[in-house]
Amino acid sequence: MYNNKIMKRANELDKITPMEVDFSKWYTDVVKNGNLIAYGPTKGSLIFKPNSLGIWEMIQKELNKIFKLKGVQNVYMPLLIPESLFNLEKEHIAGFNPELATVTQVGDKVLSEKLFIRPTSEVLFADLFKRSINSYNDLPIIYNQWANVVRWEKTTNPFLRSREFLWQEGHTCHISTKEARRFTREMINTYSKFLKNYLAIPTIVGRKTPREKFSGACSTYTIEAMMKDGKALQSGTSHYLAQNFSKPYEIKFKNKDNKDDFVYQTSWGITTRLIGALIMTHGDNRGIIIPPRIAPTQIDILEIFANKDPNVSKIAKKIYIDLGRKFRVNLDKSDRNPGFKASNSEIQGVPLRVEIGPRDLLNNEVTIVRRDTLEKEVVKIEKLKERITFILKDIHDNLYNKAKQRLDERTVFVTNYDEFKKEIANNKFVITPFCCSDEAEEIIQEETGATARCIPIKQNIKPEHSSLCIIPDCQSKTKRFVIFAKAY
Amino acid sequence: MYNNKIMKRANELDKITPMEVDFSKWYTDVVKNGNLIAYGPTKGSLIFKPNSLGIWEMIQKELNKIFKLKGVQNVYMPLLIPESLFNLEKEHIAGFNPELATVTQVGDKVLSEKLFIRPTSEVLFADLFKRSINSYNDLPIIYNQWANVVRWEKTTNPFLRSREFLWQEGHTCHISTKEARRFTREMINTYSKFLKNYLAIPTIVGRKTPREKFSGACSTYTIEAMMKDGKALQSGTSHYLAQNFSKPYEIKFKNKDNKDDFVYQTSWGITTRLIGALIMTHGDNRGIIIPPRIAPTQIDILEIFANKDPNVSKIAKKIYIDLGRKFRVNLDKSDRNPGFKASNSEIQGVPLRVEIGPRDLLNNEVTIVRRDTLEKEVVKIEKLKERITFILKDIHDNLYNKAKQRLDERTVFVTNYDEFKKEIANNKFVITPFCCSDEAEEIIQEETGATARCIPIKQNIKPEHSSLCIIPDCQSKTKRFVIFAKAY
Repeated sequence: MYNNKIMKRANELDKITPMEVDFSKWYTDVVKNGNLIAYGPTKGSLIFKPNSLGIWEMIQKELNKIFKLKGVQNVYMPLLIPESLFNLEKEHIAGFNPELATVTQVGDKVLSEKLFIRPTSEVLFADLFKRSINSYNDLPIIYNQWANVVRWEKTTNPFLRSREFLWQEGHTCHISTKEARRFTREMINTYSKFLKNYLAIPTIVGRKTPREKFSGACSTYTIEAMMKDGKALQSGTSHYLAQNFSKPYEIKFKNKDNKDDFVYQTSWGITTRLIGALIMTHGDNRGIIIPPRIAPTQIDILEIFANKDPNVSKIAKKIYIDLGRKFRVNLDKSDRNPGFKASNSEIQGVPLRVEIGPRDLLNNEVTIVRRDTLEKEVVKIEKLKERITFILKDIHDNLYNKAKQRLDERTVFVTNYDEFKKEIANNKFVITPFCCSDEAEEIIQEETGATARCIPIKQNIKPEHSSLCIIPDCQSKTKRFVIFAKAY
Repeated sequence: MYNNKIMKRANELDKITPMEVDFSKWYTDVVKNGNLIAYGPTKGSLIFKPNSLGIWEMIQKELNKIFKLKGVQNVYMPLLIPESLFNLEKEHIAGFNPELATVTQVGDKVLSEKLFIRPTSEVLFADLFKRSINSYNDLPIIYNQWANVVRWEKTTNPFLRSREFLWQEGHTCHISTKEARRFTREMINTYSKFLKNYLAIPTIVGRKTPREKFSGACSTYTIEAMMKDGKALQSGTSHYLAQNFSKPYEIKFKNKDNKDDFVYQTSWGITTRLIGALIMTHGDNRGIIIPPRIAPTQIDILEIFANKDPNVSKIAKKIYIDLGRKFRVNLDKSDRNPGFKASNSEIQGVPLRVEIGPRDLLNNEVTIVRRDTLEKEVVKIEKLKERITFILKDIHDNLYNKAKQRLDERTVFVTNYDEFKKEIANNKFVITPFCCSDEAEEIIQEETGATARCIPIKQNIKPEHSSLCIIPDCQSKTKRFVIFAKAY
């Protein structure tokens, strides 16, 4: 283990504004300095650098495995949607129209029909399903695609709201409303579990209010996560589309009674905004902390003073090969100073680093440092693999537990509107009885800045809880308890 | 093993025109019926169905492993390129301009600057590199992205030439022309090996003539494959860009002498047209044949007459689980008739199927059928895994060897122009001494329909070979021997 003077940090830390000083500046500093993004040449466009794309590739890999067990088949749909095809579902086009990037010409030639860059692909899948499905024997169809989509947002924020983002969108067709509704809920629960088990992010599963649901859906389920500043981040959605697309797009099938019916559909997705969720759930003033199960690099191996002892490089290589059999490992054998190397590993959020230097090697030891707690520990080389296996799991659990504790502590139940306003101002998640009308939601948003995040599936209503809508002018009876919060 | 009457084929075969009757109709029938594509809603747009996207995902997976060993880092760049950024490199924009899908408005609002959907991303990478590179210490940079690109081709053909396609594009910066040139060649050789080892496709590695090189490149290397009809398919390219982009885009670095220099660049890519190459290299009149190493499903397990013997499903499941530990396996336990199941497996090109029926099970046996030769074989269950391991390797080798033999047999050396025309008319690859002027190439294309495919790296020139350009009106002395062929 090396003392602080030798291990003095490079200037990296100075690049990141402390989150207590300015949370949004902290966030921007973290994404710019963690090998995560560069800005693209047009406003709101983003370059995913190796560290952020690496996280996304890991999410893809792990989610694909889970999808496969559910019978999901991956496909790839075209980027461009003809205007006439988009216009068939009225609520859908109304919701997306202002954000549609529109191709009108090729070279110098003006096209006879406008083409929209997909903001989502319901209408493309609808058109495919119409041509693919004949009878109940062809159902269910469970398709998914990993793709880029474009939505021309007015305000942008890296990962959270960019004009182009990456996502997966699942699209399914079923023989009955029951089966489709069940699948909608199954997918939102799948996302919730995935975030818990892979991203170490706890979420609240719920249904969106009518005002917040997806344009074209019958109902929208969501998982809502709490960021370190108390704001909510919608982290995945699953929509029950009913026959809202199958009717205008004529996706018919012969049911078991040999009668025509329209299919019942779902769609569901997660996006690269999950990378933003990771940063704001786990990050600290040294940068992002990547949970081990989706970290592109799980372990950084740092050679320390390799120029003073040829043994360092030799042992480092051996450890690199050995750990590489079980973990995703990177070896830094550059001749940069140890402080710079450590700091570089930290700012990129690598969960664990192994420092290999001459002094430790005298005792057949190396030093390991966890990114989440920054705790150092000297470990015998022969115990290294076993110890790392334990610590990586412990890092995951620690990240999850801290986030869960925060979510629990900062979620409050309120039945009085003044108290509601106070708690929203404190950046809490506030659960409250609510009538779910659009008008009431608008009032709350205007007066507090909060939006309805969801109607949690687990309502946990105690008998003493009021069931009158929290808005003083409303006070209608309601059975629904809704979570409000400021949100990204 | 079941006799032909029981195993009689479903109607699937009727869907595919024999390749001897009409090769291009055969191709279209194969892609439409093998769970490979559906047409999208705009002309020339394609839907990648599970089987073709599955092949592409396998190509991604295996190539990513190879790239990683070369230090390639994956990134993701924006879809849209502002006109002003594109216009900086004149030859590049001139080459791509007529094919650029152009976004001019969002919602009802006309944009102040046109945005092009990327046809390739040299200029986006150039803009990023300019901002990322300071000194020789930052070099080399070896980036790659997997992405969709749009080129508005006039004539389209599934996989081979579609207006949107998927690809990977690598972009690198180096300190010297020597290093960059070496890397350009390294990548084309990597592609050639990849096609041999994973797609079982032999290729000829060569350099493009000036007329055929990439717009903006100093030199372009290519791998050319021969399809079953004798036509060539360009299957991967690697470009040495020299300083053609680094100068107009000002990608400077301080070299070791602390002097400013512009970086030396390369770019290289393969696309989803490789799926077309697979079909036309290995396919037969029953459809696509997918080489085992990139087959999304390597083994189809078919339950035969499971309703007559409960043992069938039991053993099938056991075999499915056991083989699943080593191979990519699919279990068809539907109650469709055996002929339909077999035919369905064949048309989708699954390399091997295992048929499990009551009669074979009496002897603890199952029947395996290879897709390439359609040979059947009865195998003891306890020997199954071992036998399949051998057969899958043998299928790969057999596919490669047949393709290699065809390529060798149908490549001829010619020094007389009349003979040249005759051999081109016979759909051969014709190697000939050639002056490499644009004008001479145009003459050949007009008179024969053939284009210069490449100047092979291995020239294999014997002393007696003429070194006068084949064009009768030219007859200039040349050291270059060029392959001509009709091409996709």
